[in-house]
Amino acid sequence: MATVDHENEHPVAAHGYAARNTSGHLSPFKFSRRATGERDVAFRITYCGICHSDLHGIKNEWGIASYPVVPGHELVGIVTEVGSKVTRYKAGDRVGVGGLVQSCGSCTNCADNLESYCPRMIFTYGGINHDGTMTYGGFSNFMVCDENFVIGIPDSLPMDGAAPLLCAGITVYSPLKYYGLDKPGMHVGVAGLGGLGHMAVKFAKAMGLRVTVISTSPTKEAEAMERLGADAFLVSQDTKQLQGAIGTMDGVLDTVSAYHSIVPLFSLLKTNGKVVLLGAPQKPLELPAFPVIMGRKLVGGSCIGGPKEMQEMIDFAAKHDITADIEVIPIDYVNTAMERLQKSDVKYRFVIDIANTLEP
Amino acid sequence: MATVDHENEHPVAAHGYAARNTSGHLSPFKFSRRATGERDVAFRITYCGICHSDLHGIKNEWGIASYPVVPGHELVGIVTEVGSKVTRYKAGDRVGVGGLVQSCGSCTNCADNLESYCPRMIFTYGGINHDGTMTYGGFSNFMVCDENFVIGIPDSLPMDGAAPLLCAGITVYSPLKYYGLDKPGMHVGVAGLGGLGHMAVKFAKAMGLRVTVISTSPTKEAEAMERLGADAFLVSQDTKQLQGAIGTMDGVLDTVSAYHSIVPLFSLLKTNGKVVLLGAPQKPLELPAFPVIMGRKLVGGSCIGGPKEMQEMIDFAAKHDITADIEVIPIDYVNTAMERLQKSDVKYRFVIDIANTLEP
Repeated sequence: MATVDHENEHPVAAHGYAARNTSGHLSPFKFSRRATGERDVAFRITYCGICHSDLHGIKNEWGIASYPVVPGHELVGIVTEVGSKVTRYKAGDRVGVGGLVQSCGSCTNCADNLESYCPRMIFTYGGINHDGTMTYGGFSNFMVCDENFVIGIPDSLPMDGAAPLLCAGITVYSPLKYYGLDKPGMHVGVAGLGGLGHMAVKFAKAMGLRVTVISTSPTKEAEAMERLGADAFLVSQDTKQLQGAIGTMDGVLDTVSAYHSIVPLFSLLKTNGKVVLLGAPQKPLELPAFPVIMGRKLVGGSCIGGPKEMQEMIDFAAKHDITADIEVIPIDYVNTAMERLQKSDVKYRFVIDIANTLEP
Repeated sequence: MATVDHENEHPVAAHGYAARNTSGHLSPFKFSRRATGERDVAFRITYCGICHSDLHGIKNEWGIASYPVVPGHELVGIVTEVGSKVTRYKAGDRVGVGGLVQSCGSCTNCADNLESYCPRMIFTYGGINHDGTMTYGGFSNFMVCDENFVIGIPDSLPMDGAAPLLCAGITVYSPLKYYGLDKPGMHVGVAGLGGLGHMAVKFAKAMGLRVTVISTSPTKEAEAMERLGADAFLVSQDTKQLQGAIGTMDGVLDTVSAYHSIVPLFSLLKTNGKVVLLGAPQKPLELPAFPVIMGRKLVGGSCIGGPKEMQEMIDFAAKHDITADIEVIPIDYVNTAMERLQKSDVKYRFVIDIANTLEP
């Protein structure tokens, strides 16, 4: 394999932080980005959230990384330049990019605004552009992206707290809509109270749902109910508590990415209830056929969302004052942040202050 | 536990075949049924289908049997008497009963015509009536049942071929409707070509779907395509064949009740595709999170259907000339039939000729 000249493969100099091997250690990295094409939007990155999947990405735990990896798929910033055919954005606009930067544009999924399920979609980092070069994410000073994958950030939302909406937000918003778990008065469980879980509570509450947080940690109860506004809290190991909630939920958003049993979650569901997997344990889960059949229950998945739904989600967030709960960090803290994230030691999302701390 | 005087616990003498223990051996049995209540329909049973679940029932393989067990939940016959408040049926009408004879009538599921998911629904045999007596099924000379659970059999349908519609028919019809797999032009897979599978092919074709049968037995190809009218056939162990069908199906009705991997079925699905479990392997299935999440796929279940949907199903069957493919047997052949059913040696449903072969 030919060595890539990262600094010169494209015409525009860029810099950021990259992992070079499976240690996942991030350090300064000089690379380059393409010139702004006629349908591209270029923007100076101000903030970038850290998603749990970035941990997998930099360590190549999913086996799909190609180093160097510049992570970051919750990036927001200010438009600096737009291509001649761009109609939706202009210099100075507040914008962001989530997990996708391109799709084929011609399959049925693309036609249905389901770009995140397009078989040829390109991830924001670790993906391969049509010209064969790798994509680099938001732990970097600027971005250039097809306008169709650029999301406008409403003025009322702070940029730092809005950044995680671009992945954590859409990841919970999209399944609430798709699985019909968005009707006021419905009762939804949120299993796991981390980056995804805390967003799920906020969006579900804003939709008018009754929300019960299900967690292994009894210590999270006050947090879940008093600060995030959940209506109830269940300790997932407490059989008595679970017993009291049997058959009461229309759905459960399961954000837990460690291996776990989904059987107790099924028991919480009403007839026609739905468990939606958002975390992705590597080992297959156990699915007992009887409770699924006898209660016409289902377990489904959902993977981020397309740009159209992302815009809808972020406009909904603006209307309901929803942002992520964040801890803003300088970029030179990023390796420590990754270690803390591994231990779930963050409430609830790290966001890197790119504009003020990333130096050339 | 007090010994039950089966012959005298109710006022009306009845006779049939019952299993007395976990051998599952069926032999003549005298018992009794209640007098026709004001909302009851009494009918002389003419035919009763044999469902694979009857095998589990008579051997108590699901651990819920109370002997003696008179199986049979696909029973049809001619009304002999109706209660004073019955409005929908009269003596001489062609009727049938499926898996349910009662439900609570007051829960949300009952209100939604989802009686088969009512937590207090009563199975046609092996259930406990409100008066504490056991329910006995259709391997018997007559039935008495609340009119709300009695289904009218359209004149155009032969009684013997219609009997299995009351369980096998509704079991495949209901999920095609509920999961939205009923739109002309959709492509549906049917895994397993037995009692349920052959009905699934017929109903799906009548709905205008493209149908692919997925089976472990290459020998079933001609049968599936030439006789049942399936559009395609896949041998489930043939990786090459499966490869060619990846991402082509809107759904798969999985009728296989032996333990099996559902992973290959997921690969056959398009985005938003659905695997519906209708067979119920005792061991939990393996559910890999990644394909579920990445393709927004789901696996769900479905359990027979309520009387309203059963009537809709059987009217649809009449309109489209759908009956089960059956082998009619005398009742004294029933133990041999059970052995053959265990080996899947039937195309595709045994139906007992009760009227002509069950003697007092």
